[in-house]
Order: sequence, then structure tokens, then C-alpha cells
Amino acid sequence: MAMLTTTDEHGSLHSRPMATIKPGKDEALYFLTDANSAKVYEVKKDSQVNLSYSDSGSNVYVSVSGKANAYRDQAQIDELWSEPMRAWFPQGQNDPNINILKVTIEKGEYWDTPSSLITQAYAYVRAVVTGEPSKDDDVNQHAQVQPK
Amino acid sequence: MAMLTTTDEHGSLHSRPMATIKPGKDEALYFLTDANSAKVYEVKKDSQVNLSYSDSGSNVYVSVSGKANAYRDQAQIDELWSEPMRAWFPQGQNDPNINILKVTIEKGEYWDTPSSLITQAYAYVRAVVTGEPSKDDDVNQHAQVQPK
Repeated sequence: MAMLTTTDEHGSLHSRPMATIKPGKDEALYFLTDANSAKVYEVKKDSQVNLSYSDSGSNVYVSVSGKANAYRDQAQIDELWSEPMRAWFPQGQNDPNINILKVTIEKGEYWDTPSSLITQAYAYVRAVVTGEPSKDDDVNQHAQVQPK
Repeated sequence: MAMLTTTDEHGSLHSRPMATIKPGKDEALYFLTDANSAKVYEVKKDSQVNLSYSDSGSNVYVSVSGKANAYRDQAQIDELWSEPMRAWFPQGQNDPNINILKVTIEKGEYWDTPSSLITQAYAYVRAVVTGEPSKDDDVNQHAQVQPK
């Protein structure tokens, strides 16, 4: 599950959980959504979005900045459809309210913070001993990727 | 851990993990951060932020829309400080690089999706039988709250 953040018409930032279907072959992530939902309205006004993935158990965090585009394409809906989605679209994949929400990835970042208490204790002790703050190196992994 | 989403100078939305210290008494959430970090620069240009909390294990998701303000207040830093933070600020609570990031809550939303497969199967079967999509009622809890 991703949290999708969009900007509303007043400039306020909102997020909501979205089930990621699959990474596309084209540097994009795809979702199915209701054509009448607030997020579709919002991305039509301002296409910049963020997708965040959090796994607090393993302390892994991902941020994806991108441009979202909502549209209807029956062939693509057929390809993305899976039967459990019927809970949200009872008419099935031909439900006229289904829109594809495509997020074209502009930038991705991830943080991989080892959750082990020993590693955290090490970071703490090292900071105390060396006076150097925890950096995005051995203790906290942080990387950025951009397509192309 | 929250994912804090800000808008950069190019209008792109970025998020990063942030450890929430505690809910304030004043409809705000507080974080300690580095005064020279990108997020401090970004919220000074555009104070609208989103905080999202995800617990995929229990399928609970929270979105907080608010205004962020970064500043230095030694008395408040002393109050918010806890010793493990020394891993990031080796000089301790008097480190001149510490800023408080205060997010004043404007709107909160939560989703509480029962994770049990039986409940999900029920939502699916009900949608098939009744033709009614899953709503934010018995199967998916979704609520919005606003201060005042």
C-alpha cells in the first residue's frame, strides 16, 4: 500500500492509501480508482504527486515524486484488473467509473534504517564518541534515483 | 514514524521519514530536525505539508494536513529532547543546528481497513451479490477530523 499525496484546490496536501497494482514497463506506477474521486479531480488541477511506502517493521521508507494522469483506457483496465477489485467496482472491469491513475516517476528516494537495536545503539555510541552525526552511509542507507 | 511530504521550489512533492516526538497540547505535532535540511528550506517557502502514518500490518492509515513552521527555541528543544537523538545531534540538545519543526494540524483523516481475509472476502461477496461497492462504512472505516 502506498500513501498518495496530492494538492487540493486550496493548496492543502492530502494523502490516502492506494493499492499499487504493479510497476509498469515505462517508469510508471499504476492504480485503479473511481473517476469521481477527489484525487482524480485534484490531479487534473495539479498533476504533481508523491507516493510514499513505509514498512515500519523493517524500517524501510520510499518516496516517489511524479506526475499523475487519470484517464480511461479499457484495454489497459482489462490488463490491470484482478478479481478482488470487484469489492470496489461491483460491475467488474467494465464499470464506467473506473479510471486508471498513472504516476510517471520523476524521482525516487529510499531510506533503509537497520531496525536492530544494536545498530541503533552503535550509531548512538559512535555519535557520542566521535562527535559526528549519523549520516546516510553505513548506519542509515539513503539513496536517490532518477529515470534516465 | 511519519512520512512528511513537502513541496520543493519546482513544485515537486517529496517525502521522507520523520520520527514523531509527541502530539503537542496545542493541535500540533513536533519534530526535531537539522536547520540546514532541505525540508526546513522547503517549509519556509511553502508551509503546507502532509504527514502520513501507515501500519500495513493492521491496515491503519492516517493523513494529517497542516502548516509547518521551523524555528529554534532552546527551552522547547530541552523539553522535546531525549537521549537517543544524540545519534543525529552529537553535541546534544544545545547543538546549534537543531530546529523544531512544528506541524499545526488543519485536517486529519484515517482509514481503518480490517485486514482479516474473511472481512475482505465478505466485502467482495457482498459487492458481487448486491452490486454495491465497498463504502466507508462497515467494511472500511474512514473518518475526517478538523480542530475546533
